[in-house]
Amino acid sequence: MTAADCVVRNARIATATDLFTADIAIRDGRISALGTDLPRGEEEIDATGMLVLPGGIDSHCHFDQQRESGAGFTDDFETATTAAAFGGNTCVMGFVPQFKGHGIKDLVADYHERGRKALIDYSVHMYIADPSPAVVDDELPGLMRAGHRSLKIFMAYASSMISDYQILKVLTVAKENGGLVVVHAENNDMIRWMTERLEKEGKTSTACHALAKPAIVEREAVSRMIALAELADQPIQIFHVSSAEVVEVIRDAQARGVKVYAETCPQYLAFTAADLDGADGARYLCSPALRSASDQDALWQAIRANVIGVVSSDHAPFRIDDSSGKGGGTHGLPFSKIPNGMPGIETRLPYLFSEGVGKGRISLQQFVAVTATNPAKLFGLYPRKGSIAVGMDADLTIWNPSLTRRVAYANLHDRSGYSPFEGMTLTGWPIRTIVRGRTITAGDMREGAPGWGKFLPREAFSAF
Amino acid sequence: MTAADCVVRNARIATATDLFTADIAIRDGRISALGTDLPRGEEEIDATGMLVLPGGIDSHCHFDQQRESGAGFTDDFETATTAAAFGGNTCVMGFVPQFKGHGIKDLVADYHERGRKALIDYSVHMYIADPSPAVVDDELPGLMRAGHRSLKIFMAYASSMISDYQILKVLTVAKENGGLVVVHAENNDMIRWMTERLEKEGKTSTACHALAKPAIVEREAVSRMIALAELADQPIQIFHVSSAEVVEVIRDAQARGVKVYAETCPQYLAFTAADLDGADGARYLCSPALRSASDQDALWQAIRANVIGVVSSDHAPFRIDDSSGKGGGTHGLPFSKIPNGMPGIETRLPYLFSEGVGKGRISLQQFVAVTATNPAKLFGLYPRKGSIAVGMDADLTIWNPSLTRRVAYANLHDRSGYSPFEGMTLTGWPIRTIVRGRTITAGDMREGAPGWGKFLPREAFSAF
Amino acid sequence: MTAADCVVRNARIATATDLFTADIAIRDGRISALGTDLPRGEEEIDATGMLVLPGGIDSHCHFDQQRESGAGFTDDFETATTAAAFGGNTCVMGFVPQFKGHGIKDLVADYHERGRKALIDYSVHMYIADPSPAVVDDELPGLMRAGHRSLKIFMAYASSMISDYQILKVLTVAKENGGLVVVHAENNDMIRWMTERLEKEGKTSTACHALAKPAIVEREAVSRMIALAELADQPIQIFHVSSAEVVEVIRDAQARGVKVYAETCPQYLAFTAADLDGADGARYLCSPALRSASDQDALWQAIRANVIGVVSSDHAPFRIDDSSGKGGGTHGLPFSKIPNGMPGIETRLPYLFSEGVGKGRISLQQFVAVTATNPAKLFGLYPRKGSIAVGMDADLTIWNPSLTRRVAYANLHDRSGYSPFEGMTLTGWPIRTIVRGRTITAGDMREGAPGWGKFLPREAFSAF
Amino acid sequence: MTAADCVVRNARIATATDLFTADIAIRDGRISALGTDLPRGEEEIDATGMLVLPGGIDSHCHFDQQRESGAGFTDDFETATTAAAFGGNTCVMGFVPQFKGHGIKDLVADYHERGRKALIDYSVHMYIADPSPAVVDDELPGLMRAGHRSLKIFMAYASSMISDYQILKVLTVAKENGGLVVVHAENNDMIRWMTERLEKEGKTSTACHALAKPAIVEREAVSRMIALAELADQPIQIFHVSSAEVVEVIRDAQARGVKVYAETCPQYLAFTAADLDGADGARYLCSPALRSASDQDALWQAIRANVIGVVSSDHAPFRIDDSSGKGGGTHGLPFSKIPNGMPGIETRLPYLFSEGVGKGRISLQQFVAVTATNPAKLFGLYPRKGSIAVGMDADLTIWNPSLTRRVAYANLHDRSGYSPFEGMTLTGWPIRTIVRGRTITAGDMREGAPGWGKFLPREAFSAF
Repeated sequence: MTAADCVVRNARIATATDLFTADIAIRDGRISALGTDLPRGEEEIDATGMLVLPGGIDSHCHFDQQRESGAGFTDDFETATTAAAFGGNTCVMGFVPQFKGHGIKDLVADYHERGRKALIDYSVHMYIADPSPAVVDDELPGLMRAGHRSLKIFMAYASSMISDYQILKVLTVAKENGGLVVVHAENNDMIRWMTERLEKEGKTSTACHALAKPAIVEREAVSRMIALAELADQPIQIFHVSSAEVVEVIRDAQARGVKVYAETCPQYLAFTAADLDGADGARYLCSPALRSASDQDALWQAIRANVIGVVSSDHAPFRIDDSSGKGGGTHGLPFSKIPNGMPGIETRLPYLFSEGVGKGRISLQQFVAVTATNPAKLFGLYPRKGSIAVGMDADLTIWNPSLTRRVAYANLHDRSGYSPFEGMTLTGWPIRTIVRGRTITAGDMREGAPGWGKFLPREAFSAF
Repeated sequence: MTAADCVVRNARIATATDLFTADIAIRDGRISALGTDLPRGEEEIDATGMLVLPGGIDSHCHFDQQRESGAGFTDDFETATTAAAFGGNTCVMGFVPQFKGHGIKDLVADYHERGRKALIDYSVHMYIADPSPAVVDDELPGLMRAGHRSLKIFMAYASSMISDYQILKVLTVAKENGGLVVVHAENNDMIRWMTERLEKEGKTSTACHALAKPAIVEREAVSRMIALAELADQPIQIFHVSSAEVVEVIRDAQARGVKVYAETCPQYLAFTAADLDGADGARYLCSPALRSASDQDALWQAIRANVIGVVSSDHAPFRIDDSSGKGGGTHGLPFSKIPNGMPGIETRLPYLFSEGVGKGRISLQQFVAVTATNPAKLFGLYPRKGSIAVGMDADLTIWNPSLTRRVAYANLHDRSGYSPFEGMTLTGWPIRTIVRGRTITAGDMREGAPGWGKFLPREAFSAF
Repeated sequence: MTAADCVVRNARIATATDLFTADIAIRDGRISALGTDLPRGEEEIDATGMLVLPGGIDSHCHFDQQRESGAGFTDDFETATTAAAFGGNTCVMGFVPQFKGHGIKDLVADYHERGRKALIDYSVHMYIADPSPAVVDDELPGLMRAGHRSLKIFMAYASSMISDYQILKVLTVAKENGGLVVVHAENNDMIRWMTERLEKEGKTSTACHALAKPAIVEREAVSRMIALAELADQPIQIFHVSSAEVVEVIRDAQARGVKVYAETCPQYLAFTAADLDGADGARYLCSPALRSASDQDALWQAIRANVIGVVSSDHAPFRIDDSSGKGGGTHGLPFSKIPNGMPGIETRLPYLFSEGVGKGRISLQQFVAVTATNPAKLFGLYPRKGSIAVGMDADLTIWNPSLTRRVAYANLHDRSGYSPFEGMTLTGWPIRTIVRGRTITAGDMREGAPGWGKFLPREAFSAF
Repeated sequence: MTAADCVVRNARIATATDLFTADIAIRDGRISALGTDLPRGEEEIDATGMLVLPGGIDSHCHFDQQRESGAGFTDDFETATTAAAFGGNTCVMGFVPQFKGHGIKDLVADYHERGRKALIDYSVHMYIADPSPAVVDDELPGLMRAGHRSLKIFMAYASSMISDYQILKVLTVAKENGGLVVVHAENNDMIRWMTERLEKEGKTSTACHALAKPAIVEREAVSRMIALAELADQPIQIFHVSSAEVVEVIRDAQARGVKVYAETCPQYLAFTAADLDGADGARYLCSPALRSASDQDALWQAIRANVIGVVSSDHAPFRIDDSSGKGGGTHGLPFSKIPNGMPGIETRLPYLFSEGVGKGRISLQQFVAVTATNPAKLFGLYPRKGSIAVGMDADLTIWNPSLTRRVAYANLHDRSGYSPFEGMTLTGWPIRTIVRGRTITAGDMREGAPGWGKFLPREAFSAF
C-alpha cells in the first residue's frame, strides 16, 4: 500500500445519507480510502472540527455564453469557475444557445474552446430554440452521445421559445438519445398580454414585473409541460420553481409516476416580490418573478419532501452598472426592458447552508443531496461525481460550520458588480475546495489555475 | 278575463326544480296562467298522462354554416329546425364562422338571411378565428350588443385555432361586452405530433383516431383554457367534455370559484372508443374522441353533481355517403381526413330521457335543467326561455314518458343520412312541440312552417 | 271556476329556479293558480313591489325539547313558532332526544302533545343516543313509518354521543326505513384532551372555546362519518359545517358520488373566533366553534357551488341572564361549562337575504333553494312544501326587499333574551307569513294562533 | 496502523445513496476503513462478484412475545434471530405487550431475559393497551430513557385497542420522551359490524376476511390517526400499509408537513385477496387484508416516491398445523377465529431484492434505504446501524445477486411450519451475515451462537 497523494484528516463527512468521521485518502485524483488512522500521505490536510462535503455541483449557471444580441452575461469561464470554487463548488454546468435558423454544433465546439480557462470541471446544457430536422437529426444525436445530455427549452421569451409541437420534437430526440429536457416554464402569451395591459396603464416600474408574471403564468406552463412529457414519456426537470401552486402541480404528477424533477434557487427562498419595489428593484428582477413568504415556506417543505431535488444558482451575471445589463433599471427603464436574472454562483451554498441546515429547515444530508448528489445523478455525472465514496473523484469542499460572515460583493469573485445577498449574515462557509485532489481555493487564496477544469461528458439519463 | 288562445290540460309539468300537475293557459305566445280548472281556451290540448316540459334548447348545433372550403354540414335552417322540433326542441343555437383574414359582420347578416327558414327560434355563436383589431374593436362590440353574446374559439384545427395571446384578446372583448366564451379545447400540437407518429407507423384506421387524441390532449387544453380565463377573469364554457380527468380539472376550478361551465353530449354518454373500430367507425368519429365506460360513469356523475350543466347535441350533419362527408371513411380514408362529428339534433332529448331519467341516473328536474333551463340562463335567454312559468314564452314539449321506440334514421328529419343511435330502443319520446304557443310538430306531422322561428338576441352573461 | 279563498296580486315570485311576476290564487290552503289577471278572491293581498317566496323551512331548531338534566332551551312550541313566523318561516323542525337506557317512543308522543301549541307546521328529528335492539328493532321502524324520518346522532358530548359501531347500527335502521341520518360531527376525545390541557394551563375563558375545538376536530369527525356512511351505503347530512377544510372533505366525497349533504348556519357566516373574546363571548359560544374570515369565504363559495345545500338556524335559545343558561358565561364560568349554541330562528332569513342576496354573494333563487326547497326535498316534505307551484301548500312569505332595519332583540319573539345579531343593519325583511293560506304574521302583528301548525309526517328519503 | 480483525475484499457496496467497490476493514466490531488495497486483516473474506449491503433491519417482527391468552407466535429469540440472520438481517425489533389493567415494566425486563438467546441484535417496541397514569407517568418515561423509544398502539382488536383519548395520551408521553408511535390502523367498529353482517349471512370462509376489512376500514383509521398526530404534534409510523387509498391519505399529509411515516410488507406486494380463497386461504390471512393488483402497483410507486419508507416483514409465526394457530383455518374455522398474520422474517429481503431490484421496480439504493437505513434512522439506531461507513457497526450482508433459488420452507429456519412464499423463484440471496464483525451465517451454516445479539437502546426520535 503506497502512500496516498493526500490525506484529509479527521474529516466530519456527510453524504446524502451518512454522517461520520474519517480520514480521506486521495490517489490519482480519486478517493482511495476512508478510514481511521490512515497512513501518512504526501500532502496532509487537517480538517479537525471541519465538515467535508462532496463538492457542490451547480447545475444551472450562465457564463461565457454566446449571444446573438442583447445584454450579455459578464462572467467568462475563468471568473465564473473562480467564483464557483470560492463558493464551494467543484463543477458547474453552463449553456450553449442555439439561435433560430442556425445549427448548434459549432457553438458547442466554440464553448469547449472557451472552457479551456475553467478552474473546475464543467458540463454543458444545449438550448434548443429551433428543432429543425437539420439540428434534431444531424447534430443532436452526435452531440448527445458525446456527453451533452441535456436539452434546455424555453416556453417564454420570443427569441428562444418553441411551440408545443417543437417541444414534443425535442422530447423525442431526448428520449432517443438518453437526454434530460430542462425547462424554463412560463406562458409567454400570458406575460405578453399582462405586460401590454400594464404598459397601457403606465405601470412599468420594477415592482410591476411581479404583476406581469403572476404564479398562474408559471403554473400553466408547468402543467402543460408535464402533459407534454407524459405524452412523450420523457423525463424532464422544471427549472427555478418559485411558487406553492407549482409545487403542488409537480407533486401530483410525481405521485402518479411521471418523471418530472424540479429545481429551485436561493433567490426564491430569500426574497419576495416586495424586494422588487424601490430603487434597487432591478437587482432582484428575475423570471419567474419573486413571490411571497408563504411560497417560500412551500419551497422549503418541497425540498424536505424531495419534491424539489436540486437547488442551483441560476447565476445570471448582468452588470449592475452597465446600461445593457441591469444598469438601466435604476434609471427608470421599464421592467420589460431589464435583463432577467441575478448573480449567485458563490453565495448559493453558504446561503442554503446557513438558512437551511443552520436554521433546522433541512438536514445536512439533505443539503448534500440537493447541492451535489441529486444533480450528479440527474445529469449523468454519478458515480464519478456527487458523493464521497471510494473510487469517486476527490471533489471535496471543506466547510467551517461555525464561521460567521456578512456577504459583501467586495469579497466575491464574479463580475456582476453586486450581490443581491449583500449584507446578509451567514454562518457556515467553505474554506477549501478540492477538485480531483487538487486544492483550487484555500481561505481567500486561489490556488488553482485556469485549465485544471475539464469538460465532463455525461451518461444517458437514468431514473434513480 | 278573456279566453286564452290555448289551454294545455292536466299537464304533468316539470321545471328544473318542481314537478306538479296543472293546466297551462297561453295567450299571445306566452304562458298566462298555470292552474287547476282554468277557463276554456280557443284551442284545447289534452295532456292527460303526459309530461309537459320546457322546450329543449340545443345550444350547440351546426347547420347552414358558411364554409371557406372542406366538408360541409348538410342541414340548412329548415331541415335542422324541423329535426330539432321533432326531437322536442324549441330553440337551437348555430354558428357563424369567421375566416382568418376576414371580418365576420357580413357573415352574421348572411346567416340571419338564411335564418328566415327557421321553424323554431334560433340564436347564434360567432367563431373567432382571427381577433384582429378590425374585428375586435370595430365589429364585435356592435354584434354583441345586438345579441350575439357568445364567442366560440378553437384550441385545435389549423384553420380555426388561435394562440393563447389571441384567446386573451377574445376573453377581453367578451368581458367588455357581456359575452360568454365557448371553447373547443384540445391541444393541437399534441394531436399533430401523435397523428404524424401514427401515420409514420401506417396506423390510419378510424380506430386510431382515439389514439391520436387521448384524454391528456383534452385535459391539457382545458387546464390551459381555465388558466387563461382566470387571468382574464372571464367566464367560459368548455364544450363537449368527454373524459373523467377533464371533469376533475373543471370541478377543481369551480371549487375555487372560477366561472367555468361545462357541456357534454349524448355521444360521450352512449359510445366508447370501441365504436371507432370496424367498417362503421367513421360514423362515430368526433372530437374529442370517444372514451371508455368509466369515463361515461364520470360524466353521468358530473351531470348529477352539476359540474356539467348542459347536455347539447353538437349536431354535425356530415353526409354518410358523400366522399366529402363521412363517406370516405368507409373506404379506407385515413382517420385524419374524415370530418369530425356526428348528427344528433333529434335524438339528444329522447336518448337523455331514456338513459338518464328512465334508468334513474338523473332526475326529471335535472333533465330539464341540463337540456333547457341551464342553457337558457347561461346564454342569456332566460327569463324569456328555459322554464315553465307565468310570463315566459310558451315553448313547451309534450312527452309521452311510456312510449317505446327504436331509433331509425328513416324516422328522423336531418340530412346526414344516418344516425349513430340507429337501432337503440328508447322509452320516452316527445309527441308535440309548441313554440311561442304554436304547435310545430304533433306526432309524426310537421305543423309549423319555415319562418315561424325567430332570431333570439341574447342578454349579457350573468352568473346564476 | 269558483272564487279563490285568497289571491296575492302582482307578486314577484322566486323559486329555486325561476323568477317571474304573477298573481297567486289559493284555495283550501293550496295554490290553485298562478297567472296574470286571475279572478277576484275572497281575500285580496296586494304584493306590488314585493317578493313572494316559498315559506322558510328551518330544518334545525331546538325548542320545547325534553331534558334529562342540564340547561334547557327556553322556547316552547308557541314562542319558537311565533318567532319563526315573524322571521319568514312556515315550517320548523325540532328534536326529540333519546336518553341513554331509555326508549324514545313515549317522548315522541309527548312532543306531539307539546306541538299542539304550534302556530306553523313542524316536523321532528329524533336523537338516537342508545341504539339498543329495543329501540332499533321495536320503536324506530314504526316511528319512522309514521313520518319521523330523520335520526340525529352525536359524535361528541358524553351524554349523547355514540360509538362508530352504534353509528353503523343507526345508519342501518335508517337505510331500512327510508330515513336520513343527521350528524353533529366533532371528535369528542380530541375536545376532551384539548380542554384538559387548556384547563391545566388555566385557560378557561370563552376565547379558549375555539382553541379547544380547532377545525381539525370537526374535520376528523366528518371524514370518519363519511367513511361510515360509505360503508353502510346510507345518505347523511352533516350539520353546521363551519370550516373550509370540512367543505373540502365533503366536496371530495360528493364528487365520488357519496350521498353526503351539508348544512351551515348564519352564525358561521357572520361571526369569527374573535367574537368569543371579551365579556360577551358567551353569547357567541357554539359548537363547532366560530372560525375565521377565510372560512366564511369558503362557506359562501360552498353555498354557491351547492356543496352546502341548506342554511338552517340551529336555534338554541339559552337564556342570556340565567345561570343555568348562558348567564354564567359573563361571570367567569369556564368555557366548558357554558351551554353551546345561540338563538337565530327569527334572524336566519333576513341575515342571509341581506348578506347573501343583497350583497351579491348568492342569487335570489339560491336563497330560496337553501332556505326552503332543499330542506323540503332532503327531509321528505316535498312536493307538499318548499316551492311555489300549483297544488302545493300555500306557504308563502312576502318580503319587502328594500326595507332596512337594525336587528334589536326588543323586536324579536324568542325567549333567549338576546340576539347575537343585535345592532346589525339588514336590508330585506319578511312582512307577511302565510301558512296553508292563512296569514300568521303581518307586519309586527301576530295574526295566527297556537294550534294552526300541524305535524308534518315526512316521506322516505330519496336523492334529488 | 495495526491489522484489521477482518477485511472483506472487493465488495460491491451499496448505501442508500452510493454504489462503489472497495475493501472493508473491520476492527473491534466496527468499520475502520473502506478503501482499495487495504492491508491484510486477521480474517479475510473475498466478496469478489458479490454485493455487500448494510445488514437488514427488520423493524416489525413478532417472536417470544408474552401472551395473556390466545394463539401464540411460535418463534423464540433463538429461532427468530436465526431465521432473520439467514434472511440477511443483523437486527430485529420485537414487541412487549402491555395487558389491560397491568403495568409493562416487568414484562420488558422479562423480555430482555428471553433476549439472552439472540444471535443478532434486537430492539423492542412496547404495546400500550392501557395508558393509565401508573404506566404513563411512572413506567414509560424510565423505559423510554432506557432506549425503548417506540410505543405501539392498536386501533382495532378488542384486547389491545385504545380510544382516541387514550391515543392522545400515548402521543403525549411519546412527545415528552422522544418516542415514535407506531400504529396498527384499522377501524375496529367497522370490522365488527361487517363481520357480524357476514356471519349472519353465513359468510365465514377465509375469502370473507377481505370483505370484512375493505380498504375503507384502513383508510378511516389512518385518516383519524393522522388527525390525532397533527393535534398532538407527534411523529407516527403507520404499520403495514396495504392499499392505494391509504397511500394517498399519507402522501397528502406528508405534503402538508405532517410527520407521518409509513411501512409496508412483502405480503402486500406479493399477494392479493384472491389468495384468501380456497383451502390454503388461512395461510394468507393477515390484517389489514390483502388487496388487489392495482393496490400493489400503488405500493411500489409509494416506495419509489419515498411515501412508504420502510418495508418490514411483520413476521407472525403462527403454526400452520396447530389448531391454536392457523391450523383451524384449514378445517372450516370462521375467518374471524383464525389468527391474523404470516411468517416472513427470512424471505423479506430476498423477495424485495428479486421483485424490486431485480425487476427494476426500485433501485439497489432504494432497497438499502427501505430495509436498513430508513428503519435505523426512524427508530434511533442511526448512526450506529443502517449504513456502511467508517465508525459504524460492521453489520454487513453479503449478497450473491445472481443466485436463483426456489423458496422452500424446508430451507427456512422459523417455526411456523410453512411459508406463504413457498415455490416462488427468486434471484439474489444473502450468503453471509456479519453482525458487529462476526459471521453469524455463511451459506447454509449457522456460525453464530445465541447470546451474541445484544439489546440496542435507541435514541430519541429526530426527523431526518
